[in-house]
Amino acid sequence: MQRIGVLTSGGDAPGMNSCIRAVVRKAIYHGMEVIGIKRGYSGFIDADMGPMNLGSVADIIHRGGTILHTARSQRFQTKEGRAQAMENVRRFGIQGLVVIGGDGSFTGASIFHQEHGIPVVGVPGTIDNDISGTDYTIGFDTALNNVVDAINKIRDTATSHERTFVIEVMGRNSGNIALAAGLAGGAESILVPEILFNIEDICHKLLSGHKRGKLHSIILVAEGAASGLTIGQQIKDLTGFDTKVTILGHLQRGGIPSAFDRILAARLGAKAVELLMAGDSGKMVGVRSGEVVASDLQEILGKPCPINDEMYQLAKILSI
Amino acid sequence: MQRIGVLTSGGDAPGMNSCIRAVVRKAIYHGMEVIGIKRGYSGFIDADMGPMNLGSVADIIHRGGTILHTARSQRFQTKEGRAQAMENVRRFGIQGLVVIGGDGSFTGASIFHQEHGIPVVGVPGTIDNDISGTDYTIGFDTALNNVVDAINKIRDTATSHERTFVIEVMGRNSGNIALAAGLAGGAESILVPEILFNIEDICHKLLSGHKRGKLHSIILVAEGAASGLTIGQQIKDLTGFDTKVTILGHLQRGGIPSAFDRILAARLGAKAVELLMAGDSGKMVGVRSGEVVASDLQEILGKPCPINDEMYQLAKILSI
Amino acid sequence: MQRIGVLTSGGDAPGMNSCIRAVVRKAIYHGMEVIGIKRGYSGFIDADMGPMNLGSVADIIHRGGTILHTARSQRFQTKEGRAQAMENVRRFGIQGLVVIGGDGSFTGASIFHQEHGIPVVGVPGTIDNDISGTDYTIGFDTALNNVVDAINKIRDTATSHERTFVIEVMGRNSGNIALAAGLAGGAESILVPEILFNIEDICHKLLSGHKRGKLHSIILVAEGAASGLTIGQQIKDLTGFDTKVTILGHLQRGGIPSAFDRILAARLGAKAVELLMAGDSGKMVGVRSGEVVASDLQEILGKPCPINDEMYQLAKILSI
Amino acid sequence: MQRIGVLTSGGDAPGMNSCIRAVVRKAIYHGMEVIGIKRGYSGFIDADMGPMNLGSVADIIHRGGTILHTARSQRFQTKEGRAQAMENVRRFGIQGLVVIGGDGSFTGASIFHQEHGIPVVGVPGTIDNDISGTDYTIGFDTALNNVVDAINKIRDTATSHERTFVIEVMGRNSGNIALAAGLAGGAESILVPEILFNIEDICHKLLSGHKRGKLHSIILVAEGAASGLTIGQQIKDLTGFDTKVTILGHLQRGGIPSAFDRILAARLGAKAVELLMAGDSGKMVGVRSGEVVASDLQEILGKPCPINDEMYQLAKILSI
Repeated sequence: MQRIGVLTSGGDAPGMNSCIRAVVRKAIYHGMEVIGIKRGYSGFIDADMGPMNLGSVADIIHRGGTILHTARSQRFQTKEGRAQAMENVRRFGIQGLVVIGGDGSFTGASIFHQEHGIPVVGVPGTIDNDISGTDYTIGFDTALNNVVDAINKIRDTATSHERTFVIEVMGRNSGNIALAAGLAGGAESILVPEILFNIEDICHKLLSGHKRGKLHSIILVAEGAASGLTIGQQIKDLTGFDTKVTILGHLQRGGIPSAFDRILAARLGAKAVELLMAGDSGKMVGVRSGEVVASDLQEILGKPCPINDEMYQLAKILSI
Repeated sequence: MQRIGVLTSGGDAPGMNSCIRAVVRKAIYHGMEVIGIKRGYSGFIDADMGPMNLGSVADIIHRGGTILHTARSQRFQTKEGRAQAMENVRRFGIQGLVVIGGDGSFTGASIFHQEHGIPVVGVPGTIDNDISGTDYTIGFDTALNNVVDAINKIRDTATSHERTFVIEVMGRNSGNIALAAGLAGGAESILVPEILFNIEDICHKLLSGHKRGKLHSIILVAEGAASGLTIGQQIKDLTGFDTKVTILGHLQRGGIPSAFDRILAARLGAKAVELLMAGDSGKMVGVRSGEVVASDLQEILGKPCPINDEMYQLAKILSI
Repeated sequence: MQRIGVLTSGGDAPGMNSCIRAVVRKAIYHGMEVIGIKRGYSGFIDADMGPMNLGSVADIIHRGGTILHTARSQRFQTKEGRAQAMENVRRFGIQGLVVIGGDGSFTGASIFHQEHGIPVVGVPGTIDNDISGTDYTIGFDTALNNVVDAINKIRDTATSHERTFVIEVMGRNSGNIALAAGLAGGAESILVPEILFNIEDICHKLLSGHKRGKLHSIILVAEGAASGLTIGQQIKDLTGFDTKVTILGHLQRGGIPSAFDRILAARLGAKAVELLMAGDSGKMVGVRSGEVVASDLQEILGKPCPINDEMYQLAKILSI
Repeated sequence: MQRIGVLTSGGDAPGMNSCIRAVVRKAIYHGMEVIGIKRGYSGFIDADMGPMNLGSVADIIHRGGTILHTARSQRFQTKEGRAQAMENVRRFGIQGLVVIGGDGSFTGASIFHQEHGIPVVGVPGTIDNDISGTDYTIGFDTALNNVVDAINKIRDTATSHERTFVIEVMGRNSGNIALAAGLAGGAESILVPEILFNIEDICHKLLSGHKRGKLHSIILVAEGAASGLTIGQQIKDLTGFDTKVTILGHLQRGGIPSAFDRILAARLGAKAVELLMAGDSGKMVGVRSGEVVASDLQEILGKPCPINDEMYQLAKILSI
């Protein structure tokens, strides 16, 4: 393996830069060259790529986002698009590919690998932590801290005004961010797409809490479970409480990556390079009980990633 | 002056606790007693109040919100409500009142002072920085840093995805937060209620910037100028750019108060006590060019507070 | 089990309050009573303890330190001291004890358990992450982020002035904080007590880096490995570089607990209560590959906790 | 004025990048060219300089330190050094110079201006806030928040362990940082170089506070007033309290600049360009009661900058 390519794809996640840095430095350490591919698969198709050196990744370890930029590409879902990308693989002499992204990006990587035989290793980079085969995905810990920081701030005003706050957080089809943030932030109720909820029960809990003297409450809503605005209106209607809604949106994805994400990203990026050097392919790297491991992309693709039931039950018990 | 009362009214603002602490300690230092009034004017009417000591304000200097809680009171706008409050003034032996809040709170304080002759001093506590008679209001600096922190985070993802972001910030009828945050955050356009804007011009600027290779942009919108969602849709329609909207909402009001707000709050709170001790009344304390000053409530009430034109022009120049 | 006691002992760690909250709420949820013991074992001996309710743990989840306070106690290392504590166990009707602390605290707990037969469960709360039987200890993640935040700040001035910085971090006999922070912060060299280092090699690396144009460097030193001041002087002498030293000290232990630490603390605290309810004893709870587990205190006491060699080698490779 | 030069000199300060950005964009906006000079006066002498464009200052507004780097130069204090710099002024066609730095940097600028007649405008950039002619210097607000953030963290462990903490902060001969941080952080005592202190009095206050039940204390020491280590030892000896010392060092200078510093820096940088355009010279820009102003360098050089006595007295009153 003389030359590898690296790209970030799908939604950006804090820590991706630390991962890119690790891929580049690890490869150079072992005497290989690295081609940085811009804008995910669309840059891969458009040959928007070029060599990276130690300088390319200097002073990026603490930056959010991704210096390679990212995008979602329709064309890579077509045979023609992938063939065009393969052209660039030959043209730039790329012998192995590191794809940093989420489930969708891995599907494309896996098909590309099967169609054209080029070795590919995936690194889980998404704030949603919804990929099986790893305990944590790169970006989840930072996003989680962003949400909990927002909860801290909103709690100040919730307490002062004795209000009910509904906070809508990211997570597409996953309740991981909502559950973890709700447990860490001491939310009164947590709505996740994985578990059916009943708005009457939630309001009943708010009302009985209010009877016991609880003067403010925070409800976390995963975007995949319901609309924060809808829930806020329903609570207002059913309880009469002064209810405010905040939709955190994209600020959850940004900011200085946490130490946890930087370390995870560095370890996974280096492992991806090792796998390619070892002639391994069609794999995704991950972390399990503190150890870096590899799984077959085939096995983990589309595999459901249930939320932690012990944590869900615990959140309920602690919010009494 | 043997006993004074203190209350926080209107929207909560970071630094109010530092102000309460200063009022209590300064008064005790001079041998006076302090009655803390809960929930602003509604607690004042309902006699939800009691004595405070050094312990009551220990370990609160760094907490957001207000330990006295706050509320908006319809009843205090009625003669009957104010008469009821005066009853409590007599009952608790309050000889002077410190009101920490915004313009609306001061109107009530001023009427109360004129009706019942009780000495009142106002302390400007609002994140909007829209009160004449002071260069800064308590809470503005912290809110500003909250917004700029959010811009930093959103910029990471804006850069990675080459998107346009619209961020709606607080400020009711004032563009102060939007202008200051836009200047500090390097926003491409800033929409404030004080100045007419033209969506075509904004989009024209975005498009020409895009031609020059500018791949992402951030537009700040003061809630009093327009709806972020509307502006986002208009930009999407007129430019075709992938445009996302974030409404920061109440997280702007919370969080650990900045050093600036804590110091301002301490100085203004102490000055308010001094004025009451000196038999002064119907005043608002403020800061002007670093010095603590006092103005007549009458003079500053409802007085317009224009945004800083030099800063507005500068923001335009720097966003070329 | 009708009534349990809880105490924090040894050095305080961010997240201890989230753990106390979980112990109290979980116990109350199951109909038990909780006695809060102040100042660790010294309050245990002096009967500085009392009942806790839901209100006792309201609004503490995001506070650093420990509301129960903590201390190191010589007397509990004596038979007399422990007998006195057992007196209070009887007097307050405590049937089980949760001890939140580190290795030293568990030794005391284990001896106490054996001498007096009272059920005891330990919860690992220390920033050092040096306890076997758990992948993480409560407080480590927050301390790590505090150190990395300091590295970020120091890097700004290191870059601007082209200086070498030596940063001494905590960790007593463990290099865990230094290694993790160095990997996350991109330090050029990391000195840990577990691995012999040679100051000439470190300076040689600095000099060759300087030849390659590297204009600033950061060296992390675990307090157990060497004195930051000594290392700084040696580097200055051997390289002639302008070298500055920062000793982070106790600010590493404080601050708002990270989401990771709050969740870990809540899960471990609740599990400790479950073990006591199940009649289990002489155990320590921990987390292994995301799952909450229990180990025998006997097995883990004094058991060495080697640093992660893969991470150590990786830090070297990435700092080329 | 067709072409101006800009440099940062002396200690780096957060916000310098925002100032450089404003100088460059403002100049380009008015059709001028900008030469960026590296490493302060030493780069000025060594011709380490080159043209800057809009791209040179993109994405730097939120970065600490200075992209132009900074240094202290002995040579510029010599006639020969300054003559060499003048050579480069001619060679690069520089017609006006913006110097961002502190008192020492301005002295050099002023002499250079008198010797060679080249127009020079100074911008106050130093965390010490010790320059007359401006209410605030660039970097002070961020440094202040860094110190107060450290106090917050240390207070957590001080409270939990009931300890006395001594924190040494920067400020060379100025007590501004110590005083402001002590007032904002609620320190029990503040030692500044401007005011004589008596260690016996400080310990007496600690002891009487302890009698009243105050279980922890924080003493702020400006580096110019005394050594934190010495004060810590003296307190330990005179009170017997468990006393810890933290020397914050260079982390005070770094980090993301606060909104206040970014806005101040942008306004002062733009004003400096305006002065040069207007043919003004030998001036320093500053802010007075919210307005940007200009003073003669001659008048402000070496002029003492006393600390705010009202704030010092207030800090004493509030720490009862």
